[in-house]
Amino acid sequence: MDKNKGKKLFTPGPLCCSSSVKEAMLVDLGSRDILFIDCVKQIRETLLDIAGVTSNDYACVPLQGSGTYSVEAILQTTSPRIGTKILILANGAYGKRMEKMCQYANLEYNIKCFPETQKITADTVNPLLSAGVQYSTVAIVHCETSSGVINQVEEVGKLVKQLQSGAAYFVDAMSSFGAIPLDLMAGGVDYLVSSANKCLEGVPGFAYAICRKNHLISCKGNCRVLSLDLVEQYLNLEATGQFRFTPPTHTMLAFKQALKEYENQGGLQGRAQRYKNNRSILKKGMAKLGFQELLDNEHDGYIITSYFMPKHPNFNFKQFYTKLADKGQVIYPGKVTDAECFRVGNIGHLFPEDMNTLLNCIVEVLEEMDVPMPLQK
Amino acid sequence: MDKNKGKKLFTPGPLCCSSSVKEAMLVDLGSRDILFIDCVKQIRETLLDIAGVTSNDYACVPLQGSGTYSVEAILQTTSPRIGTKILILANGAYGKRMEKMCQYANLEYNIKCFPETQKITADTVNPLLSAGVQYSTVAIVHCETSSGVINQVEEVGKLVKQLQSGAAYFVDAMSSFGAIPLDLMAGGVDYLVSSANKCLEGVPGFAYAICRKNHLISCKGNCRVLSLDLVEQYLNLEATGQFRFTPPTHTMLAFKQALKEYENQGGLQGRAQRYKNNRSILKKGMAKLGFQELLDNEHDGYIITSYFMPKHPNFNFKQFYTKLADKGQVIYPGKVTDAECFRVGNIGHLFPEDMNTLLNCIVEVLEEMDVPMPLQK
Repeated sequence: MDKNKGKKLFTPGPLCCSSSVKEAMLVDLGSRDILFIDCVKQIRETLLDIAGVTSNDYACVPLQGSGTYSVEAILQTTSPRIGTKILILANGAYGKRMEKMCQYANLEYNIKCFPETQKITADTVNPLLSAGVQYSTVAIVHCETSSGVINQVEEVGKLVKQLQSGAAYFVDAMSSFGAIPLDLMAGGVDYLVSSANKCLEGVPGFAYAICRKNHLISCKGNCRVLSLDLVEQYLNLEATGQFRFTPPTHTMLAFKQALKEYENQGGLQGRAQRYKNNRSILKKGMAKLGFQELLDNEHDGYIITSYFMPKHPNFNFKQFYTKLADKGQVIYPGKVTDAECFRVGNIGHLFPEDMNTLLNCIVEVLEEMDVPMPLQK
Repeated sequence: MDKNKGKKLFTPGPLCCSSSVKEAMLVDLGSRDILFIDCVKQIRETLLDIAGVTSNDYACVPLQGSGTYSVEAILQTTSPRIGTKILILANGAYGKRMEKMCQYANLEYNIKCFPETQKITADTVNPLLSAGVQYSTVAIVHCETSSGVINQVEEVGKLVKQLQSGAAYFVDAMSSFGAIPLDLMAGGVDYLVSSANKCLEGVPGFAYAICRKNHLISCKGNCRVLSLDLVEQYLNLEATGQFRFTPPTHTMLAFKQALKEYENQGGLQGRAQRYKNNRSILKKGMAKLGFQELLDNEHDGYIITSYFMPKHPNFNFKQFYTKLADKGQVIYPGKVTDAECFRVGNIGHLFPEDMNTLLNCIVEVLEEMDVPMPLQK
């Protein structure tokens, strides 16, 4: 095979996109041109639809850069110059990254680190919210991509609204939005962030925030970074339909096409079902080979799965990864959990046959490495 | 014609890219995959070559987002938490945008605003540099895209090094890099920023900084924004070959192809010659129609040209713009100078025949609008 083409990405992003999504990038549009303005408008409206909210209450604010930029934009934008106190509910690398952002900007914060293998629930959060500290923002990750665990963000949000009525409730839904249901209104979500390059299957280059309008407007003047000022980005989009600074036009055209395909494939229900099927094939196949999951059986996520490294002396992860990649199967290196794990994603333009091919390749590679199957605990 | 396809963009970016550059985006690569790591490495090295510097002295640091993000990243990264004093030498919108960035981050600064129709020279800057104030960073724009004026950044840089030896000298070369010569070593340039989507003719989605290594390393801990921390971005690229956060993989693949075409087309000399030809056709053709340039005849830029709005009562810019766009010719709306002007760019994948077609379309549109030619002053 041509090494440059046709690899399958079993990663949390950049992930596989359909050919038609990529082909939508074969056009140059001016960023101030009416065709591009229409494209942005349509994307913003469709994202509100997918979020299940209306433009009466919420606005969608796309922002150039990776998802991290939009997370930092939310923390910066919702933090008043005086009186900021952020509560970060963390159980993985992405929660901890928010702490770093606070440290960079000298934003006052508390972080509570939960075990990375357990979902954060309303019960576990209750004492923190009722300890007498008033927070300006409470932040949590929906699907912690570092382990794959899904936190109970709706239940936590209800409690935030009850016990911390003054706080903005921010959900980082990077790797869940569009595939794992979340009722923003019921969960009291004021800000949600996701990226073009996750479950909606666009190419990377921008992310977006779904913001409760009346709160967003109250944040004018907060942000300490011009590039990441969500209020000004929002006001400019509303006034002119344009980004403040050069947008990734091709990426947005791809995303418009991705949204069309998302709708044609049954929206959230369709996407969730496909990912669940993918995950189920992976789960069964890997279990049969003797791979052990980091998370216990209660775990019901279907985005990405963490596996313990096999213990056999012939197993070498770098070799395993490279041999799989040579067969066109790219899994996810880069350990982010405390435990010794690797990860396999099943989101993106992946189908049952792709999951089966991956499993077959894993068998081949283990054979080549002379690692006997099933793996021993 | 298909309204979505084949428009010619006479703008400072997003601009026209070759088909082969766009087709390079038809591949999904994992951001931690060796193929992508190689792509990033090659891009970083080639950009140093184009800048005429070596990796002994300089490093190239690409950063997701628009060019503005990289400009802000430089200002943030070169500004110590204590003792910052930035001097901004401004003669247009992009210089003034730097002031805004300083205000956002509470960075102490002086701004000197020069007339937007005149180039900034060493002579005009001399009194500012020798007034007894020690600056941490001196910032200037090479080609002020708001008017098209080219500032004498090399001469200014020599003076900065002479009179402000402690200051980092930062040149925003967004719309000039790769097409207008600039000797970084001779001009004492410590930081230069440009974007994928300017004279190197890639698609938008990231920008890059060429940084003097020993200064960059001295800036650790300065940046107040995780996403824009150039030191950490640099250290991570050096250590792993990877971006810290999801890079725009497709955009980078396009850029790699764009760099190949740049080299095949004669590098800076070839690119400058083509743009000069484009500009010369535009200049003559527009003069013949009676359009008046904002800048006087001494002006020797060849990136973008500002024209005064015609005074004839039948001339309406919105109509003019739209009718041209309907003919597939996209000029640049959005007034940024003090004078009543519109702009026509001639960078991007544009050739003499494109410039002639544009001129023919302008004649047609003026006829349709019943504006007699040549225009009266």
